[in-house]
Amino acid sequence: MPRIAYVNGRYVAHADAFVHIEDRGYQFADGVYEVCEVARGFIVDMPRHLGRLNRSLTELSIDWPVTRGVLPIILREVVRRNHVTDGLVYLQVTRGVASRDFVFPAGTKPSLVVTARKADPAAAAKRAEGGIKVLTVPENRWDRVDIKSVGLLPNVLAKQKAKEAGAQEAWFIDADGTVKEGGSSNAWIITRDGVLVTRPAEHGILRGITRTTLFEVAAKLGLKIEERGFSVAEAKAAREVFISSATTIAMPVVAIDGAPVANGHPGSITLSLRQAFFDVAEKSPA
Amino acid sequence: MPRIAYVNGRYVAHADAFVHIEDRGYQFADGVYEVCEVARGFIVDMPRHLGRLNRSLTELSIDWPVTRGVLPIILREVVRRNHVTDGLVYLQVTRGVASRDFVFPAGTKPSLVVTARKADPAAAAKRAEGGIKVLTVPENRWDRVDIKSVGLLPNVLAKQKAKEAGAQEAWFIDADGTVKEGGSSNAWIITRDGVLVTRPAEHGILRGITRTTLFEVAAKLGLKIEERGFSVAEAKAAREVFISSATTIAMPVVAIDGAPVANGHPGSITLSLRQAFFDVAEKSPA
Repeated sequence: MPRIAYVNGRYVAHADAFVHIEDRGYQFADGVYEVCEVARGFIVDMPRHLGRLNRSLTELSIDWPVTRGVLPIILREVVRRNHVTDGLVYLQVTRGVASRDFVFPAGTKPSLVVTARKADPAAAAKRAEGGIKVLTVPENRWDRVDIKSVGLLPNVLAKQKAKEAGAQEAWFIDADGTVKEGGSSNAWIITRDGVLVTRPAEHGILRGITRTTLFEVAAKLGLKIEERGFSVAEAKAAREVFISSATTIAMPVVAIDGAPVANGHPGSITLSLRQAFFDVAEKSPA
Repeated sequence: MPRIAYVNGRYVAHADAFVHIEDRGYQFADGVYEVCEVARGFIVDMPRHLGRLNRSLTELSIDWPVTRGVLPIILREVVRRNHVTDGLVYLQVTRGVASRDFVFPAGTKPSLVVTARKADPAAAAKRAEGGIKVLTVPENRWDRVDIKSVGLLPNVLAKQKAKEAGAQEAWFIDADGTVKEGGSSNAWIITRDGVLVTRPAEHGILRGITRTTLFEVAAKLGLKIEERGFSVAEAKAAREVFISSATTIAMPVVAIDGAPVANGHPGSITLSLRQAFFDVAEKSPA
């Protein structure tokens, strides 16, 4: 059964899904994206993802490619046409197609691409049982990573470097030694006292949707959260460490730069956050 | 007469020139580009542009999409098929098409897109007679702008801001107050003593091809060059100011942040550099 993608108003076979060579997403990274988890037939936290999309578009003065009410219908339709019960749905909006010039073109219609794909929830559960390893790298990105743009080359290079070091995520470390965020996730620690710590989302990181929902999950579990920066040393000495993103939920980190975190095994609090996540997150029927 | 583009092995009508939605250039800005001037039927400084392309590809571990000997043939063919005598030829190489994942995919063939378009040399000459205005903005880009990647969103935003302020270029200013480079050009001043000053290309800027050729033009004209940083204040008080790029050559700057440079008119040394440029630059028959 062929995969189907939505491209600028049409549902097409994935293999035939193309955008113009002068789409500004291709020539300038002049676009933004969102990834929603699909779990048990629901799109997870969709309204929050669309809210963040709206913020990204506003920051870049890109119009909505379709009305905000129509986008959920398209997301659902792509999920449905690809028979995804568990997996993800990806959407990308760019400023559209125009003769190459840096400044915003006049009257260009934004481009919209939506894809969906299946993932094996058992494989994700297995990954969580083992935990992942993190490599730290110096923060070297631009100062507007709060915008979820497709300008992801620094993230690509950092995550590739992590992979080559046997790790599954890279953490960008600020000049002051504090952890900013992962290449495609937010970073968390749990102190010896059982307090969750994560960097404030006001400056220099992306405000993760899963991060936001995890605040509610933590409240439900009676866990305290501190929003503050933490150092790599503090993370290495923490009781537990984990990352969060739409596709990983709360994923235990068992090693940082080759050194084990705590006893080198996933922590129980992280796994309980992971377990409770789906009950708390908003579930839109796909 | 329809414009023709080269896309991954085929010459196609520009209107039908498409790349896949999962081209990593579109999803990750995982690609690089070059722009060569075409003047009087010649491609200007092509070997130097291809040398820099090779460096960009090497830094990102992207393979050449075609052999290095074949690319000039494709550039020439695109210029020829579009009947460009004066204008530019643009090439873009990305890591290729792969299922979306940050890390480098295995076995992906890089994508190659080449376009060409005409420009009116009389209009460019007229622009040089009037000079351009520059707006300064804080440097906020990543630390690998020495790689000519398509991750140009910060440049887009800076140049848009410049445009909205009535300027034609934005200058990124370092935390130490020195001028880094323009959104799509290098920055130069000429001191009261007639010495050309431009920032060393070792750190934090792109090594402009036109910048390199201008070193030879200056030598031919008996002008001294100092490679060092300069401040916005020094630029404002300079005898002349100009920018350089493949599409602008040496272009006089007559105002910075609304304040006139010198007498507010293009400087004679800049115009002589501009005039002598074509004699010195390497000309490959198109």
